[in-house]
Amino acid sequence: MVSSFNFASIPYIIFGAGKLNELYNIIPKYGNNVLFVIGGSSLNRSGKWDEIKNNLESNSIGFSSISISNEPSPALIDDNVAKFRNENIDLIIGIGGGSVTDAGKAISAMLTKKHSIKNYLEGIGNKIHDGKKIPYIAIPTTSGTGSEATKNAVISEVGPKGFKKSLRHDNFIPNITIIDPELMISCPPSVSAACGMDAFTQLLEAYVSSKSNPMTNALAFSGMKYMSKSILPVCSNGASNVNIRARMAYGALMSGITLANAGLGIIHGLASPIGGLFNIPHGVVCGTLLAEATKLNIEILQKVGTEGKLGLKKHAEIGALLSGDNFVPEEKIQEYNIKLVETLEKWTLDLKIDRLGKFGIAEEDIDRIVEKAGLKNNPVNLSKENIKTLVLNRL
Amino acid sequence: MVSSFNFASIPYIIFGAGKLNELYNIIPKYGNNVLFVIGGSSLNRSGKWDEIKNNLESNSIGFSSISISNEPSPALIDDNVAKFRNENIDLIIGIGGGSVTDAGKAISAMLTKKHSIKNYLEGIGNKIHDGKKIPYIAIPTTSGTGSEATKNAVISEVGPKGFKKSLRHDNFIPNITIIDPELMISCPPSVSAACGMDAFTQLLEAYVSSKSNPMTNALAFSGMKYMSKSILPVCSNGASNVNIRARMAYGALMSGITLANAGLGIIHGLASPIGGLFNIPHGVVCGTLLAEATKLNIEILQKVGTEGKLGLKKHAEIGALLSGDNFVPEEKIQEYNIKLVETLEKWTLDLKIDRLGKFGIAEEDIDRIVEKAGLKNNPVNLSKENIKTLVLNRL
Repeated sequence: MVSSFNFASIPYIIFGAGKLNELYNIIPKYGNNVLFVIGGSSLNRSGKWDEIKNNLESNSIGFSSISISNEPSPALIDDNVAKFRNENIDLIIGIGGGSVTDAGKAISAMLTKKHSIKNYLEGIGNKIHDGKKIPYIAIPTTSGTGSEATKNAVISEVGPKGFKKSLRHDNFIPNITIIDPELMISCPPSVSAACGMDAFTQLLEAYVSSKSNPMTNALAFSGMKYMSKSILPVCSNGASNVNIRARMAYGALMSGITLANAGLGIIHGLASPIGGLFNIPHGVVCGTLLAEATKLNIEILQKVGTEGKLGLKKHAEIGALLSGDNFVPEEKIQEYNIKLVETLEKWTLDLKIDRLGKFGIAEEDIDRIVEKAGLKNNPVNLSKENIKTLVLNRL
Repeated sequence: MVSSFNFASIPYIIFGAGKLNELYNIIPKYGNNVLFVIGGSSLNRSGKWDEIKNNLESNSIGFSSISISNEPSPALIDDNVAKFRNENIDLIIGIGGGSVTDAGKAISAMLTKKHSIKNYLEGIGNKIHDGKKIPYIAIPTTSGTGSEATKNAVISEVGPKGFKKSLRHDNFIPNITIIDPELMISCPPSVSAACGMDAFTQLLEAYVSSKSNPMTNALAFSGMKYMSKSILPVCSNGASNVNIRARMAYGALMSGITLANAGLGIIHGLASPIGGLFNIPHGVVCGTLLAEATKLNIEILQKVGTEGKLGLKKHAEIGALLSGDNFVPEEKIQEYNIKLVETLEKWTLDLKIDRLGKFGIAEEDIDRIVEKAGLKNNPVNLSKENIKTLVLNRL
């Protein structure tokens, strides 16, 4: 049975080592006044930013740039929008990790509006964005959020009244994304680990999501296939291997495409409140919850009888994939469910993903985290008690 | 290894039984002057066209319509473009089979231009289209060409100087496609058979294509998976089953997305000259060549040694899929290659796909067909002699 589904457009994808160079042929099609949004340091350190600037100058392309170093806040977006509103920007290009990609996406959307971005954030403001934006090209330098292919930008305010909310519209999917694995070579192991776990979480949650469809299933499984053998090496002796970086980048790209169309589960339902209340990298929240949440979902799926069968089968398919097999006979579903959890637990240890306690989260914080948590499209219903235990087990 | 690839945008996809009704919410976003391009008869016969017209009127949407009954020729496009050029059309909607979808796509592209479409056809004219078009929504009523997701419109002139050539631009991918399997219920068995074989050919050729990439592999395999058990029933006792129609429609959609990004092989390399020289439905050309061309490709892949290994493995994966298995151990590759050809031969017989001779093609025509044939992205090189034998075996 193919149930009803919608599948949003995807960016025009240019994938491959060295493909950053196509940028200079693309820019003139949009105009001659480009705003770059870049990250704090790694692009500078690697010499890439100097190389890009030289190329822009020798191609007579006019540009400005802003550099951001944290997850974007409403104030950061509003300030930069105010600065560039009257500059007739033709094109915005974000080169960096998830925060940079999201900041560029939000600025491209807000340059067409007069009010603060807060008015347009889901669950915060009450204005609806009409989707008008300045064209946007996303160039990721990490393999993580998949934001280069999604329709939302995550905006955070950290603190007691903190939040982590999305600016979202189908039209905010970047016009083009250039995925050049050479740009990822300089990404340090701890960042590669957190980003990799974020992307894998997104793929797994999209694959088992209650809103999954045949297209998201095919692409999420393909993403997990390419990531599964690369996630450990990319954080150790494979860090400089462009093929391994390419496999991770492909997985992250698929995670963006599939989460945008199938939704996510309890892990991302917890990542929003945790990320709003505490200063903890998004990839670490996902990574630290991944094995434990998967174990919980499988446990509850086993309890709900027939209704849980498809979810268990899908979890087993991922378990088989991570074990190097690709066929799941009925009688082996339980075995592969166990193997899945064991592999994810091993990854969490091998990649040295920190526990939540390390970031100051304590037992007395759990209630207000769980209060704000959402199930999203989790494959099975979870009680508040289930979710409390999940967080507690990862303190 | 993930090699470099580009992946073009896809339309916004709305998939599901009854989804045609979303049209009346979508149209006002584009304007109030719609041009419908519809087919000759089936939409009328089923009462659907009357229903659509009533809905348009009760939603106060202004519209005109043109009806076409054959594969679109340059004259047909030029005449209709001349008729509607000064009518300020806001949106074009094509509802029909592949010919209708292509005609709508071509009209949407040519309404922005003053010269004949011939000037812009690949291999015919020497003008380059800039991609500007009137927004276009494609609503297929057959599960065949996948044109609802591609960037090209096939335009034909039949006769001794005949051709079958594409108007092509990334921007010609329809803005939206609505895939409503209820619209396909009235499609007669012979048309369902030819369309189904066309779509399956596209999926298979894209999957084994020399230009395939991980995304096209995942989506083509998914399309074949859904089609494989439905292609025979949809032409017999499953014709009115909306789930079976949905599976075929999903496969056809995937065929469009994957051919646009991975290219095709020798079958479509022959379909252009055959379709230009003789009046024979495109789906029949593909269907009648499918088993024979697959057999030939496997035979030559076996002869080229190491270079052919990946191609043989991919053919075996499809053979296993069609046999209800989904794991191909090394030692079974040959067995599944044979099973693939046998299954395709069985489909050709069961679906009563005519031979080329039935349409007046004779032995003396083969040379000029082969002269004009292209290999496209066939997984292995074929000699002119190979191609001659292929056509001869299907006369």
